[in-house]
Amino acid sequence: MSQRVEEVIETKKELMLLLESRKDEMIAIRRFLHENPELSFKEEKTAQYIADFYKGKDVEVQTNVGNGYGIIVTIKGDKPGKTIGLRADFDALPIHEATDVPFKSKNDGVMHACGHDGHTAYMLILADCLIQMKSSIAGTIKIIHQHAEETPPGGAKSIVESGVLDDLDLVFGTHLFPSHSTGTIGYRSGFAMAGRTYFKLVIQGSGGHGSSPHQSNDPIIAGAHFVTAIQTIVSRRLNPFEMGVVTIGSFDGKGSFNVIKDSIELEGDVRYMNEDTQQLISREIHRIVSGIELEFDVTCELTYTADYPPLYNDPAVTAEVVSILKKSDDPDIKQVVEFPVFSGSEDFAYYLEKVPGVFFNIGCKPKGVERAFMNHHPKFDIDEDALLVSAKSVAEVVCSYYAID
Amino acid sequence: MSQRVEEVIETKKELMLLLESRKDEMIAIRRFLHENPELSFKEEKTAQYIADFYKGKDVEVQTNVGNGYGIIVTIKGDKPGKTIGLRADFDALPIHEATDVPFKSKNDGVMHACGHDGHTAYMLILADCLIQMKSSIAGTIKIIHQHAEETPPGGAKSIVESGVLDDLDLVFGTHLFPSHSTGTIGYRSGFAMAGRTYFKLVIQGSGGHGSSPHQSNDPIIAGAHFVTAIQTIVSRRLNPFEMGVVTIGSFDGKGSFNVIKDSIELEGDVRYMNEDTQQLISREIHRIVSGIELEFDVTCELTYTADYPPLYNDPAVTAEVVSILKKSDDPDIKQVVEFPVFSGSEDFAYYLEKVPGVFFNIGCKPKGVERAFMNHHPKFDIDEDALLVSAKSVAEVVCSYYAID
Amino acid sequence: MSQRVEEVIETKKELMLLLESRKDEMIAIRRFLHENPELSFKEEKTAQYIADFYKGKDVEVQTNVGNGYGIIVTIKGDKPGKTIGLRADFDALPIHEATDVPFKSKNDGVMHACGHDGHTAYMLILADCLIQMKSSIAGTIKIIHQHAEETPPGGAKSIVESGVLDDLDLVFGTHLFPSHSTGTIGYRSGFAMAGRTYFKLVIQGSGGHGSSPHQSNDPIIAGAHFVTAIQTIVSRRLNPFEMGVVTIGSFDGKGSFNVIKDSIELEGDVRYMNEDTQQLISREIHRIVSGIELEFDVTCELTYTADYPPLYNDPAVTAEVVSILKKSDDPDIKQVVEFPVFSGSEDFAYYLEKVPGVFFNIGCKPKGVERAFMNHHPKFDIDEDALLVSAKSVAEVVCSYYAID
Amino acid sequence: MSQRVEEVIETKKELMLLLESRKDEMIAIRRFLHENPELSFKEEKTAQYIADFYKGKDVEVQTNVGNGYGIIVTIKGDKPGKTIGLRADFDALPIHEATDVPFKSKNDGVMHACGHDGHTAYMLILADCLIQMKSSIAGTIKIIHQHAEETPPGGAKSIVESGVLDDLDLVFGTHLFPSHSTGTIGYRSGFAMAGRTYFKLVIQGSGGHGSSPHQSNDPIIAGAHFVTAIQTIVSRRLNPFEMGVVTIGSFDGKGSFNVIKDSIELEGDVRYMNEDTQQLISREIHRIVSGIELEFDVTCELTYTADYPPLYNDPAVTAEVVSILKKSDDPDIKQVVEFPVFSGSEDFAYYLEKVPGVFFNIGCKPKGVERAFMNHHPKFDIDEDALLVSAKSVAEVVCSYYAID
Repeated sequence: MSQRVEEVIETKKELMLLLESRKDEMIAIRRFLHENPELSFKEEKTAQYIADFYKGKDVEVQTNVGNGYGIIVTIKGDKPGKTIGLRADFDALPIHEATDVPFKSKNDGVMHACGHDGHTAYMLILADCLIQMKSSIAGTIKIIHQHAEETPPGGAKSIVESGVLDDLDLVFGTHLFPSHSTGTIGYRSGFAMAGRTYFKLVIQGSGGHGSSPHQSNDPIIAGAHFVTAIQTIVSRRLNPFEMGVVTIGSFDGKGSFNVIKDSIELEGDVRYMNEDTQQLISREIHRIVSGIELEFDVTCELTYTADYPPLYNDPAVTAEVVSILKKSDDPDIKQVVEFPVFSGSEDFAYYLEKVPGVFFNIGCKPKGVERAFMNHHPKFDIDEDALLVSAKSVAEVVCSYYAID
Repeated sequence: MSQRVEEVIETKKELMLLLESRKDEMIAIRRFLHENPELSFKEEKTAQYIADFYKGKDVEVQTNVGNGYGIIVTIKGDKPGKTIGLRADFDALPIHEATDVPFKSKNDGVMHACGHDGHTAYMLILADCLIQMKSSIAGTIKIIHQHAEETPPGGAKSIVESGVLDDLDLVFGTHLFPSHSTGTIGYRSGFAMAGRTYFKLVIQGSGGHGSSPHQSNDPIIAGAHFVTAIQTIVSRRLNPFEMGVVTIGSFDGKGSFNVIKDSIELEGDVRYMNEDTQQLISREIHRIVSGIELEFDVTCELTYTADYPPLYNDPAVTAEVVSILKKSDDPDIKQVVEFPVFSGSEDFAYYLEKVPGVFFNIGCKPKGVERAFMNHHPKFDIDEDALLVSAKSVAEVVCSYYAID
Repeated sequence: MSQRVEEVIETKKELMLLLESRKDEMIAIRRFLHENPELSFKEEKTAQYIADFYKGKDVEVQTNVGNGYGIIVTIKGDKPGKTIGLRADFDALPIHEATDVPFKSKNDGVMHACGHDGHTAYMLILADCLIQMKSSIAGTIKIIHQHAEETPPGGAKSIVESGVLDDLDLVFGTHLFPSHSTGTIGYRSGFAMAGRTYFKLVIQGSGGHGSSPHQSNDPIIAGAHFVTAIQTIVSRRLNPFEMGVVTIGSFDGKGSFNVIKDSIELEGDVRYMNEDTQQLISREIHRIVSGIELEFDVTCELTYTADYPPLYNDPAVTAEVVSILKKSDDPDIKQVVEFPVFSGSEDFAYYLEKVPGVFFNIGCKPKGVERAFMNHHPKFDIDEDALLVSAKSVAEVVCSYYAID
Repeated sequence: MSQRVEEVIETKKELMLLLESRKDEMIAIRRFLHENPELSFKEEKTAQYIADFYKGKDVEVQTNVGNGYGIIVTIKGDKPGKTIGLRADFDALPIHEATDVPFKSKNDGVMHACGHDGHTAYMLILADCLIQMKSSIAGTIKIIHQHAEETPPGGAKSIVESGVLDDLDLVFGTHLFPSHSTGTIGYRSGFAMAGRTYFKLVIQGSGGHGSSPHQSNDPIIAGAHFVTAIQTIVSRRLNPFEMGVVTIGSFDGKGSFNVIKDSIELEGDVRYMNEDTQQLISREIHRIVSGIELEFDVTCELTYTADYPPLYNDPAVTAEVVSILKKSDDPDIKQVVEFPVFSGSEDFAYYLEKVPGVFFNIGCKPKGVERAFMNHHPKFDIDEDALLVSAKSVAEVVCSYYAID
C-alpha cells in the first residue's frame, strides 16, 4: 500500500469518527428544521439558519444564489485538486403534517415530508467536519444548499445558470427513502429518474343556459375529448419500449349543473426518460390541442413548460461510487443495491446535465415498521440513524475521489 | 246581449278601472321587493311583507304552506261558482345585480332577475281589487303566493301536496318576458316548457402520484368517457323528432397537476318535453353509469332526481284564454301571439298536472331598447307598465270564466 | 248543384267504374314487374315495358328523360285547364327476396321491396283510362314514370332540370305503406319527410406492423374519435327542438389483426327537416373532419353531397286533397288519417320544390297479417287491392282539380 | 492447448470448409423454395422436398410431427454428449411478390417474404455436412424443420407438446434480417421478442334504418367507444416502464351508408414482454368489453387467445454464444452486435420455454442497397451470402458446445 493511500485511509477514518461524534447534533438540527418548515421559494428563515451556521467559519459563503435563497459554501483545501459539489435541498411541502413526533411542524399546512430537513442536517455537519480538515483536502468542495426543489422551475436550474458551479468537476447528492431500511444505499446507473413537464390548458367555449346547448359552446365536451385523445400519445405514438406518462391531474370544470360554462382549465403532468420522448409528447399535445380547437370551435390556451429533465447518473462515475461504497468497511454502510428506474423527478438533474455525478438513495425506514409511509405522505417519517449513513456515504465518496488527502 | 253578459262586462270594466287607478302602487311594491330580494326557501321577510299586506282584509290567509314560506289567500265570492287559482312567485336569484336602477338590490349577491317582484306586485293589487269586489264574484279565487320557484324541489310541488289546492277547477299564472314589448301576450298550447332533471355523479377511483398511473385509478379518465358516452343518448337513443337535452354543467375534477385524484364529481341537467323521454334518458344514464363502473373499475354514486315536469297548458283552456284575450278591447292588451316551445322549466307545471289551466307570458321589454337583457341576466330589467298588463290580462281571464258575475 | 259540378261527378263516376273494371290488369302488371325487377339506373327492360304499353295510344311519350330511363307521358285534354303531374317510380332494390309469392323475383338479389311495382302498375292503368277520357279532360296530365328513386342522385332532380315539367301547376304522388290496412290514406301537411345527405370520409393514416404503432399512424384510432365527436352535433350543436340524424352506416376498416391499416373509409347518412339544419350539420362535419386531421395527423378526404331535400307538402294543397278524399263516397277509400313526420327521404321532394303538390300514402297491409314486413324488408309484401285504392284516390284528386270536366 | 480442444478446432475447420464447398447448393435450394412457396399449414410439397432430401441418408426422419408437416431429423453422433436442437422454419406468407428476381414465386399471392426459404436451405446443407461428420459428433443433433411459424397457433407449440424434443439440452435458431449487412450477427439476452395475443370482438347491436337510430342499436358507436377506451390500458393501467401494445388491426363495420348495422367485428393484436403484462392486458380488455356491453346495451363475443409467448434467450447461453461468435476467426463472421428488443413475435419462444437456448439474427442486406425492404414486404429480398453465414455461425455454436468432437 502506497503512502498516499494510507494517508487517505487515515484521513477518512478521522472524518468518520468526527461524523460519528456529531450524530446527535445532526439529529437536533434536523428536528429544528422539521419543526420550522418553509415552502419552496419562501425559505427565508431556513436560509438564515444555514448562513448563521457558517458564521465565523473559514469558508466563503454566497447567499441568495439563483432565483431564491440558494447558498453556496466553498471549502478550499490546502492542496490542489478537483472541485466537487455536494448538494442538499432545504424546502418543505404544502402538506398538513399528520405524525405524532414531538418536533411536529409548527407551521400549519407546511411539512418536511420529503426528508430535506435530514439532507440539510447531515450536510451542515459534514461541511463543518470538512472545514476542520481543510488542511488535508486536495481540491475544493462546494456545498450547495439548494432552495425550492419541490416547485418548478426549482432552484437547481438557476444556480447552475448563475455560474457559481462552472468550476465543478463532479457533483453528488443523496435522497432519503423509507422504502429501504437504514444502512441500505440505492443506486441506478444512467437514466434513473424521469423528466417532467407541467402543462395547463384553458379551453374557452361560450357559456349559456344548460337547456340550450346550441346557443353556447360547451367547453366540457371539448375537454372530455381532449382527455380521451391524449391517451393515444402514450398508447400509439410512443415507442412501446419507451417510458412516457401523460396525466391530467386537474380538470377544473366546476360550475352550476344547469349552466354551460364559459371556460374550463386543465392541468397536466408529463414524464419521460429522455429528451426525444419529451419532444414527441410536446409535439403531440400541441397538435391535439390545435385539432380540438378546430373540431369543437373553441379557443385553447396551452402553457407547456418542461420543468426538470430526466436525471442521468453518469455510468462511469456511478460504477466508481458503487465500487467505493461496496468496498467500504464502515459498519453503518450495510448494503448497496440497484434501484429500479423511478418515475418521479428531481431538479438535481440540472447539475448532472452540467457535470458528471451521481444522485443516490439512502434507506431510512423507521425501525419496527413493516411498510413505511413514503415521501410526500402526511405521516412520512424517517429513522434518524440514516443521517449519519448519509454523511458517511458521501464522505466515503469524497475521500475516495481524493478530495481528502 | 243577455243581462248576465252585460253584468259581467260592467263588472269587468269596473275591475279594469280599479286596476288602472292602482298602477303606481303596483310599481311601488315591485320596487320595494326589488330592493329587498331573498333567495329561494329564505324569503322570510318577503313572505311577511305579503302577509302584512292582507292584514285586516276580509280573506282567509294561510302562511308557511308547503315546504317554505308559501301563502294561500282565499277570496270567497258571494255567489257560488268555480274555484280558480292565480299564482305569483316571490323568490329571487343568487345574482349580483348590475343594473343602474335607483331601487337596485340592497342584498348584495341576490337579485330579482326573473321578474318575480313584478309578479307579486301586480298580484297583490289584483287580489285587493278582487277582495273589494267580492260581492260580484261567483266562485272562489285562491291567490297562490309561491316561494322558491327557482330552486328545486321548488315550492309548487309541496303546495299541491299540502292539499290546499284540492278544490281548484282551474289555475293560471303569468311570467314577465322582456323578449317582447309591453302589450304583447304570449301563449303556447300543450307542452310549452321542458321538464327538468338534476343529477350528480360521483366517480370514485383511487388517487396517487401523477407519474404512476398504474398504481392508481384515475377518475378523470372515467369521467371523460362518461361525458362522451352520454352524448349518444340524445344522438342515437332518442327519437330524432323528440326534444331532449343532457348537459354536464359541472365537471369538478380540480386538483394538483401531478396528483391523480381520488374522486371527481359531475353535475348535470336533463330537459325533455314528455315523461317517456324523461324515462328513456334516466334509464340510459343509469345504464351508462353502470357500464363506466365496470369499464374503468371505478365506483359510481348517481343521484338522479326529476325536478319539474314538462309544463302542459291544457289545449281547451288555452284556446279559451287566447280567444278571451284576443277579443279584449282593452288598449293595454295589444296583441296575443303564439310562442315557440321553450326549453326552460317552471314548477308551475305541478299545478297543471293537477288541474287544467294556462301559464302565459307578458311582454315587458324596456322602452327604447333594441334587444333587452333576458331573465337571469345581471342587467335584467322590465318596463313597469307590464305590471298593469299582467293584472289586466289575468283579470280578463278571471272575469270571462265567470268568477266575477 | 250546378251543371258543371254534375258533369264532373258523372265523369268521375265513369272513371272510377273504368278503373274498377281493370283492377285485375293492374295486378297482372304489378306481378310481371315484381318478377322482373331492375336496379336504379339499370331499368332498361322496365322502361321498355312501360314505353310499349303506350304504343299506339294517342299520347306524347318522351323516353330517356333526365339522367336515366325516365318517361314522360303527356295526356292533353280537349279543353284548356291546369297541367297536373302524376308520378310513379319504377326501380327496385338490391335485396334478395325472401317471400313465397308465386311471382317472386327472377332477378336474384334484386327485389321490388318498396312497392314501386305497384305504383307503376296502377299508374299505367290510370293513365290509359285518362287517355280514353281525353275528351272530358280540361287541361293536361303529365304522367311521370320515374327511374332511380332509390339511389342518389335519383331520377327526380334530373327530370325537373330537363325542363319537361316546367309547365306543371300541381304535382301528386303516392306511396304504398303496409303499416296501415287497405283503404286507409295517410297525409302530412308541411315538412313530411326528411332531407338526406350522403357522405364518405376516407381517413389516410400510414400503415405498418401491429406491434409498432409509433412507426405508423393508425387511421382506426382517428376514425373512432371521429365517430364519437360527431355525436355532439346532434347532442350539442343542434337546437333540441329540431330534428337531425347523423349515422355512420359503414365503417370499413377491415384488415389483418396484426397490421395497422393505411386508410379506412366511412360512409354516413344525414337527415334533417329543413335547410338550416342541413347547413349546420354540413358545417359541423366539415369542421370536425378538419379538427381530426390536425389532431391525429391524418389526411381526410370528405365527399359530402346533399341528395334529397326535405319533402314539403304544400299546406293549402294538402288541406284541399284531404278535404277531397274525406268527402269521397267511394267505398274503397275508407279513412284519411294524419301521419307523423317520417325520417325517411324521397326524391319526390324535388318536384315539390318546383311546384306545389302532395305526396300521400296508401295503406296496403296484407290481409290477415297482424304486423306487416315494412318497405325494404326481404319479406315485404302488399295487399294488391291497394292498387285500385291508389288509382282511385289519385283519380279523385285529379277530377276534383277539374282536370276532368 | 489440450488435445481435445485441438481436435475440436480441426473438426470445426473441416466442417467450415465443407459448408463453403456447398454454398452454391444452399443458394440453389433457397431459390427452388422461393419459387414454390406454400402457406402455413399447407406446406405439403415443401415438406415432401425436405423429406426427399434426407432419403437414403443415415438418419432418423420423423414426418408430420405436431399439428402439421413438421419434420424432425435426428443425427446421432458416434460418441455420447448433449442433445442440441437446431430449428429452421419453412412456411411462406400470403403476400403477392413484387420483386424482379428470376426465381420469383410461381404460386401467385404466396411469397417467401420472411426468409424461411433461406433458413431451410442452409439448414439442409448444414444437416447433411453434420451427417457426413457423424463419427466426430459427441452427442445428438435434432434438426427441427418447422411448419407454420407465421400463423398462430404455429407449429412450434405442437412440436414441443408431441414430446419429440423432450430430450433436448439446448436449442438454437436464427433469423435472416436485412436491416444489417451480411456478416453481422445480432443477439439480445433475456426477453428479446414480444409475446403476442390475438383477439376478436363481435359486437352485436340491432340493425335498422339509418334515419331511425332510436329503433336500432348501432354497434359502430359501441365499437368506436371500445377503441378509445382500450387506449387507456397502455396509457394508464400498464406500468410506464413496461412494454405493451394493443392494436385493433381490423374494424370490420362495412355496410350501407343509410343502414345501421346489426353487428360488427373487430380483430386485435396484443404485444408484451412478460406474462404479468399479458395477464394485465387480458383482464383489462375483458373488463372493458363487459363495460361496453352494459354501457351500450350490446352483446359482445370476445375470443381472446394468447398465441406466442415472449421470446426469452437464456442469459448464460446467450453470453456463451456471443463469446463463441466474437472469438470466431472465420472471415464470414464479421461482427456480433447487440440488438434492441423487438416487438415482433416468434414461436421459437415455445422451444425456449422448454429448454435454454438462443435465437439470433443474421444480417442479409442485399449488396449496394442503402435501406433494404424489411421482412413481410412484397419486395423483401436477401443477400444470399448470408446463407453461408447462417450455417457457419450455427456450426460455430454446435462445435463449441462440443457436439462435435
